[in-house]
Amino acid sequence: MAKQTAGEEAQKETGRVEAFSDGVFGIAITLLILEIKIPQPAEVLGKMSLAVALARQWPAYISYLTSFLTILIMWINHHRLFRHIRKTDDNFLLANGLLLMAVTIVPFPTAVLSLWSQTPDANMAAKLYTGSLVAIAVLFNVVWRYASGDSRLLTAGHDRKEVEAITRQYRFGPLLYLSTFALSFVSVVASIGMCMGLAIYFAIPSRKAVCVTD
Amino acid sequence: MAKQTAGEEAQKETGRVEAFSDGVFGIAITLLILEIKIPQPAEVLGKMSLAVALARQWPAYISYLTSFLTILIMWINHHRLFRHIRKTDDNFLLANGLLLMAVTIVPFPTAVLSLWSQTPDANMAAKLYTGSLVAIAVLFNVVWRYASGDSRLLTAGHDRKEVEAITRQYRFGPLLYLSTFALSFVSVVASIGMCMGLAIYFAIPSRKAVCVTD
Amino acid sequence: MAKQTAGEEAQKETGRVEAFSDGVFGIAITLLILEIKIPQPAEVLGKMSLAVALARQWPAYISYLTSFLTILIMWINHHRLFRHIRKTDDNFLLANGLLLMAVTIVPFPTAVLSLWSQTPDANMAAKLYTGSLVAIAVLFNVVWRYASGDSRLLTAGHDRKEVEAITRQYRFGPLLYLSTFALSFVSVVASIGMCMGLAIYFAIPSRKAVCVTD
Amino acid sequence: MAKQTAGEEAQKETGRVEAFSDGVFGIAITLLILEIKIPQPAEVLGKMSLAVALARQWPAYISYLTSFLTILIMWINHHRLFRHIRKTDDNFLLANGLLLMAVTIVPFPTAVLSLWSQTPDANMAAKLYTGSLVAIAVLFNVVWRYASGDSRLLTAGHDRKEVEAITRQYRFGPLLYLSTFALSFVSVVASIGMCMGLAIYFAIPSRKAVCVTD
Repeated sequence: MAKQTAGEEAQKETGRVEAFSDGVFGIAITLLILEIKIPQPAEVLGKMSLAVALARQWPAYISYLTSFLTILIMWINHHRLFRHIRKTDDNFLLANGLLLMAVTIVPFPTAVLSLWSQTPDANMAAKLYTGSLVAIAVLFNVVWRYASGDSRLLTAGHDRKEVEAITRQYRFGPLLYLSTFALSFVSVVASIGMCMGLAIYFAIPSRKAVCVTD
Repeated sequence: MAKQTAGEEAQKETGRVEAFSDGVFGIAITLLILEIKIPQPAEVLGKMSLAVALARQWPAYISYLTSFLTILIMWINHHRLFRHIRKTDDNFLLANGLLLMAVTIVPFPTAVLSLWSQTPDANMAAKLYTGSLVAIAVLFNVVWRYASGDSRLLTAGHDRKEVEAITRQYRFGPLLYLSTFALSFVSVVASIGMCMGLAIYFAIPSRKAVCVTD
Repeated sequence: MAKQTAGEEAQKETGRVEAFSDGVFGIAITLLILEIKIPQPAEVLGKMSLAVALARQWPAYISYLTSFLTILIMWINHHRLFRHIRKTDDNFLLANGLLLMAVTIVPFPTAVLSLWSQTPDANMAAKLYTGSLVAIAVLFNVVWRYASGDSRLLTAGHDRKEVEAITRQYRFGPLLYLSTFALSFVSVVASIGMCMGLAIYFAIPSRKAVCVTD
Repeated sequence: MAKQTAGEEAQKETGRVEAFSDGVFGIAITLLILEIKIPQPAEVLGKMSLAVALARQWPAYISYLTSFLTILIMWINHHRLFRHIRKTDDNFLLANGLLLMAVTIVPFPTAVLSLWSQTPDANMAAKLYTGSLVAIAVLFNVVWRYASGDSRLLTAGHDRKEVEAITRQYRFGPLLYLSTFALSFVSVVASIGMCMGLAIYFAIPSRKAVCVTD
């Protein structure tokens, strides 16, 4: 059997990191639904209708939606980064692993926010939630800076301008999420509203670029 | 290392979207089982046999079966769409992401239906359940219409007739699920029965077509 | 961009079915651990040591082990079947989907068995458990008979003898699991012991065959 | 359609084992977050602030972090092994399956440790935790020794020195984790501290080797 070429080997390498990352993103995003409580007939019947019980859980739906959109956008971004990455090394695997850890943690602050957003301690819940988004934004920068610094792990024929555009764009992530964190000290509604707004803003593609034209 | 050709790149692109989607479908379909309550000896012993306790949960099994078959058929359909899709863009990733969100939500209405189908509020549970299936059917159309409109993201050599056949066939999905939603106002049994019937109907292949003959 | 050849397309097809199946097997096997209860300090402290509380849960560990090994062996078998399958069609996707449904159900009877194996209703729990293994064994035969009948979905150059050997071997699965089901009416220990024995027996490879020699 | 070459077939073989393993690692690592309890307003309000309730759970965060890093490093190592493995056989699938079982069990001792680390029974929880890490380290050696013995399943052109380097390095894993197990009899803090230390130590790459240079 012939030895694989370096190129094939590299593609297999990044392929497995992508597959593992996709799995973790996919599971984290799907587990979010488990944090929404099922109204129990024994607790609800006689007090209110199921419709009212479901409606009262609206903060859980907002949290769910914000977290789902945020993780989805992270995944799309992760996907975009790997279009330019052709190699991996141990540092990169570690940085990517820490990023994945931050992503898998999201269901926890999401559940805390759902349960506490209408209590006197809502601010603390919002701080926890926005703080974890800051961590993710920072780790995204670490992963990308490491991979793109000195073109360390990039494809040989990568588009220099696009790489720089990503670097510029990513710089704002931590600042924007830091703003939502700062806002959470003042107003929970404004803070979570901004998180939701950012998710929607980033979700709407600015350029209607087709990834690949043939 | 040689630059990849556009075709290889594109295949890697859609490949990763498919892998992520498969992961989400696979997890959502597997999580359904967690919504079936395990009869607890402390609550059951002395009151009834395990067999009776298991039998009393029959609405949970019906809900499980309907949801499993429905997600399975969605996955087969998703799989079928991607046979014709060769490119992705950001809009497409977003539309597909919203479709996946609707799919991951399914365990929630399934659990609500299981618990509430024998209460006076069964109608509300059925509305929630059928309503979420309407959303999925609509989002499937959004994904396919976007990908196939102007042959935007299709393979170069796609079969025009088959693409049009899919478009025609998909048009009925939202209408059929809207009927189950309307039925849920009148009769829970008829409404869920129709969902089950649709899942079985779509599961039985109309044409005994082999995907690929060699 | 060139149209893919039929062979490449077919490989992509079965590839996606395998990936989805792997995901479902992987999740079902990993969810099993969630069914093992964590001893709660509030309930245990003052009554017994943690060691005793953990030891008392031994039926849960036996159930876990039996189910894990059984799903693992199913996965290895599924993996072996797909070595011979090169095409898919809608019937096959449906049959494989029903097989996956049976696999994802396993955590439910496993949890019931764990909780009820030391109650007067242990027989019912064992019937449920072994009954679900019968269903899986039957569905494995359905999937394989459909794929291999008239060489319907097999690779062009498949090894006729090996295909027949699999068919012969699979015939015994339903009978063996039907025996564990019959045993569960008489003795829970013998019935679950036989399930465990079968899992270990099938896990130990009879022929020390290397899948691929190069 | 042409028969695949032995090399392609082998790659597909190990590819599927890797995909299944990645799925199991990915799910096990993501399920860890479910073991962290969400502070419930009904239990906390009026007694302490959410911040205090969250802070009091610090042992759960330490356990989470240690387990996440440990599974991550296991995954990186698994990934590294498969770079040298090109074939599979039934024994190997079984050994790898047992390793995956040990990995999926990790959320259980992690949860026990989180709940019991501040009780008089903390030692027992630490023994369970470190004992399960010993099992994983031993199984990693079994998998690698089987695959690399007589170069049984290695790629044809494998680097003899690197293979021996892995064998030497792996020998220490069981000894080191056996030390944490021994320590757990004396001091829970020292024992878990050493687990955390090992995870961090192994996570920091000693050689800044790029996997593939092109």
